[in-house]
Amino acid sequence: MGLFNRKGYDATSIGDLAAELGVTKSAIYHHFASKEDLLRLALDDALDELTMVVTAAAGDTDGTGAYERLRGVVRRSVEVLAAHQPAVTLLLRVRGNTPVETEALKRRRWLDDQLAGLVRAAIAEGALRDDLSPDLVSRLLFGMVNSLVEWYRPEGTHDPVSVADAVTSIAFDGLSRRDHHPGAR
Amino acid sequence: MGLFNRKGYDATSIGDLAAELGVTKSAIYHHFASKEDLLRLALDDALDELTMVVTAAAGDTDGTGAYERLRGVVRRSVEVLAAHQPAVTLLLRVRGNTPVETEALKRRRWLDDQLAGLVRAAIAEGALRDDLSPDLVSRLLFGMVNSLVEWYRPEGTHDPVSVADAVTSIAFDGLSRRDHHPGAR
Repeated sequence: MGLFNRKGYDATSIGDLAAELGVTKSAIYHHFASKEDLLRLALDDALDELTMVVTAAAGDTDGTGAYERLRGVVRRSVEVLAAHQPAVTLLLRVRGNTPVETEALKRRRWLDDQLAGLVRAAIAEGALRDDLSPDLVSRLLFGMVNSLVEWYRPEGTHDPVSVADAVTSIAFDGLSRRDHHPGAR
Repeated sequence: MGLFNRKGYDATSIGDLAAELGVTKSAIYHHFASKEDLLRLALDDALDELTMVVTAAAGDTDGTGAYERLRGVVRRSVEVLAAHQPAVTLLLRVRGNTPVETEALKRRRWLDDQLAGLVRAAIAEGALRDDLSPDLVSRLLFGMVNSLVEWYRPEGTHDPVSVADAVTSIAFDGLSRRDHHPGAR
């Protein structure tokens, strides 16, 4: 999937993929009917993980507040992204030219709607500031999470737990030292 | 430049650009020697604006603290992005296959280094929390700003000022209501 991300999906041939993986083209065709099949596999990998995380958080079966569930879903989204970086990158770059991409975009929109709902619920329960548009908050919050695909690499200097800590701390608690700026809210 | 972003720079021909702009190919060649010339123009547009903003903030000529200058540069980066969305989008997608792109990446890295330095200075002066890696803070902070290229459109529902307010409020003050979570720092 790294090849799709580096060369672009359209510019990548099954021959390129075979060379990258060190196998023959016929070995790939033995498992996948087409390049689109491979794309679906990668997108489903990312979408299935994210759907699991978001469904658990949006479900609220055990009475945990929306604020805690939102904070948890941000943390777990970072973990999914770290563990499935190439597939999530592919998902975020989908533009919708093929049925597989259209379907992935539909599933992405469902996830976005669930997350925006969780932000609204956390505002409604009084745990989140209410002076910003919930839609804007949701976009910026997950914009920060998604920006990780641009530079996060599993072999890099930052482990997933530190990155998840940093994202949740910045987003929910802010960068300012509260004792230093008592006037800031 | 919107066409470069939609179709991809490599897949866009001068003929496509002429059709998009409603002019003849020779009219384009009258002004630009090549497609790369056009790319340089767009990237310089974004880079010149951002360099101006970052140089002013990193310079510290009037004794303003690093925290205020960092907060200001975040706000002004959002404004530059809103006013030059197609050019900034192009800049963020550059991967470095041509001399023009290599040069743009070099200028981008310089900007990133200046911003990381400003984060470190704000931590050193005691205004920013010191429990997170400055490098990570800088990446996430500007990752949130840059994520705007994915959805921000001048004709959309959010004006640049509200977006700049939301980004700076979330990043520096956090989403949690402080009175609701007194234990959170």
